[in-house]
Amino acid sequence: MSRFLNTKYADLEAYTPGEQPRDKQYIKLNTNESPYPPSPQVLAALTGQDLEDLRLYSDPEGTALREKLAALYGCQPGNVFLSNGSDDILNFAFMAFAQDGAVFPGLTYSFYPVFADLHKVPYATVPLKEDFTVDVEGLCGTGKFTVLANPNAPTGIALPLSEVEKILASNPDRVVVIDEAYVDFGGESAAGLIDQYDNLLVVMTYSKSRSMAGARLGFALASRPIIQDLEKIKYSTNPYNVNRLTLKLGEAAVDSDAYFRDNAKKIMATREKTTKALRALGFTLPDSKSNFLFVKKEGLDGGLLYQKLKDRGILIRHFSDPRIAQYNRVTVGTDEEMEAFLEAVKAVMAEEGLA
Amino acid sequence: MSRFLNTKYADLEAYTPGEQPRDKQYIKLNTNESPYPPSPQVLAALTGQDLEDLRLYSDPEGTALREKLAALYGCQPGNVFLSNGSDDILNFAFMAFAQDGAVFPGLTYSFYPVFADLHKVPYATVPLKEDFTVDVEGLCGTGKFTVLANPNAPTGIALPLSEVEKILASNPDRVVVIDEAYVDFGGESAAGLIDQYDNLLVVMTYSKSRSMAGARLGFALASRPIIQDLEKIKYSTNPYNVNRLTLKLGEAAVDSDAYFRDNAKKIMATREKTTKALRALGFTLPDSKSNFLFVKKEGLDGGLLYQKLKDRGILIRHFSDPRIAQYNRVTVGTDEEMEAFLEAVKAVMAEEGLA
Repeated sequence: MSRFLNTKYADLEAYTPGEQPRDKQYIKLNTNESPYPPSPQVLAALTGQDLEDLRLYSDPEGTALREKLAALYGCQPGNVFLSNGSDDILNFAFMAFAQDGAVFPGLTYSFYPVFADLHKVPYATVPLKEDFTVDVEGLCGTGKFTVLANPNAPTGIALPLSEVEKILASNPDRVVVIDEAYVDFGGESAAGLIDQYDNLLVVMTYSKSRSMAGARLGFALASRPIIQDLEKIKYSTNPYNVNRLTLKLGEAAVDSDAYFRDNAKKIMATREKTTKALRALGFTLPDSKSNFLFVKKEGLDGGLLYQKLKDRGILIRHFSDPRIAQYNRVTVGTDEEMEAFLEAVKAVMAEEGLA
Repeated sequence: MSRFLNTKYADLEAYTPGEQPRDKQYIKLNTNESPYPPSPQVLAALTGQDLEDLRLYSDPEGTALREKLAALYGCQPGNVFLSNGSDDILNFAFMAFAQDGAVFPGLTYSFYPVFADLHKVPYATVPLKEDFTVDVEGLCGTGKFTVLANPNAPTGIALPLSEVEKILASNPDRVVVIDEAYVDFGGESAAGLIDQYDNLLVVMTYSKSRSMAGARLGFALASRPIIQDLEKIKYSTNPYNVNRLTLKLGEAAVDSDAYFRDNAKKIMATREKTTKALRALGFTLPDSKSNFLFVKKEGLDGGLLYQKLKDRGILIRHFSDPRIAQYNRVTVGTDEEMEAFLEAVKAVMAEEGLA
């Protein structure tokens, strides 16, 4: 920290992204990326002209892409907001809508409390139930800005839309963010409810199901006034934050929507297979509607499993939070990657006298 | 505005980016983009593998690019900060370092007061002198976070490094930002002073001399503690904000540094030619060390000239600020573009009975 830093950030703890070690090639199951490349249309979308045109600023309104996304989700372009990944949108939402404090589940995406701390937003958390499901009653009628990841992370558990709607309806004077980063892997989207609930902000990303984490593209769907507020914040910080190539690739991804939905189905099938195999090995894990599994085995320390898999070239995500230190979050990769993961798990279990 | 927006943003006026009309093809001299494409190495840098790898997050630390930039500017990678364009860095700097208020020249990049308003930073402005040069004495010893665009916008006038150093030395307990977006067109960079002044933050961009406005890449050079503060803010908002392709292209641009320096020379030559031609037509304009000209002609209304050029397919930048409403800012394009611009100016002058 420099001696110049605003004292209000002195104690701020930044978010810790998943590790990206470069010492060797890993099977990377730690940051919930897709194991499949972007669609063939995306891979073929860029021309020499697009590269020459990098000399020009991108369209700050992202007009063409917003039109395509609006058509895909059955709304108007004015209901679509684009930004540099969904984290960017969540950050703007905490700035814009959390004046009276925030509420989110006690175990969820660990970036939410960072945004809250950054913007000095007081927040309350509603503990998950014993079975790791979200306590819907606890999130209802709080009168606070609310953020719900659905499916939730790192558990992978999804709420049915009827439960989400209870939260929306109970809190009509505050924005309720539904963070649908993982919705394409079996969850129910709230996108169809934006006309009905003017307090609903649905946040989505190209980073997971659309295989474009490295392109940096997130979008949000909401009533027009909420979108206008987000635009005001974006235009007061960094109007051109989505790159020209990404806008073009993002359009190609919408044009090839069926491709990523097929990938999502493949990932869901691999997930079910891996879930069964892990349970057969004595692991405990909730039913996931996401592209990751939240796994624990009685008698096998979570940190130890993480480290021993890393030694074997397989990266999974371990959390230091003591409530979940016995768990690991494992991204669902290809069938082959998950077989390698399961083999390595068995080897670790054998070493630990558990097989 | 929605009924949910934090009241502290109710009166916020967002920045207005230069217009990007799509009704027809314009000669675009309004947003200070380069008329030349990125270097051949940049145009050839992306492989099919890079596109497939978009499924993976970008390296949040931008390690390889920071190493190259550090070698280019004679510092350590730890002295280099990367972000999504220099606006993004300026925004972070206002967040991080302006706790006791800010100071900047009275006529400068119009985004500075927007950042200040967004973060509720009280600010004072130091009026330019009669000849539009920056009042260095007025910026010295203020004890406030200071932002100086050098060369300044929209005037294009540069301060010599010795004058910049006076400001740095007079204000040792506050960060002084030198915004060098346009420095490659004839200004003197303060980059070599970061070891000497631990309060110096030099902000640069790929958007102008490097012909990559649409790639979204800005960087800053400073003492390590200042860089760490910026990293803390970035990691608390959007850690992956520079896209994978942009990181790769940014490296190729450093590898082909001579190419963009040649372009800058071409643009400077075109600038000098255009300056002479405009003065011969009776225009008043300061000597520019940037890639734009700040021009006015007695008896020819600034707004009218802007509109009549637009009607003729030439876009320049007009500002509504009454102090400069008689001026226009004209980006230096190719020789051919500037000839077309001068022809159009002559035609407008003839129409207005000024030729």
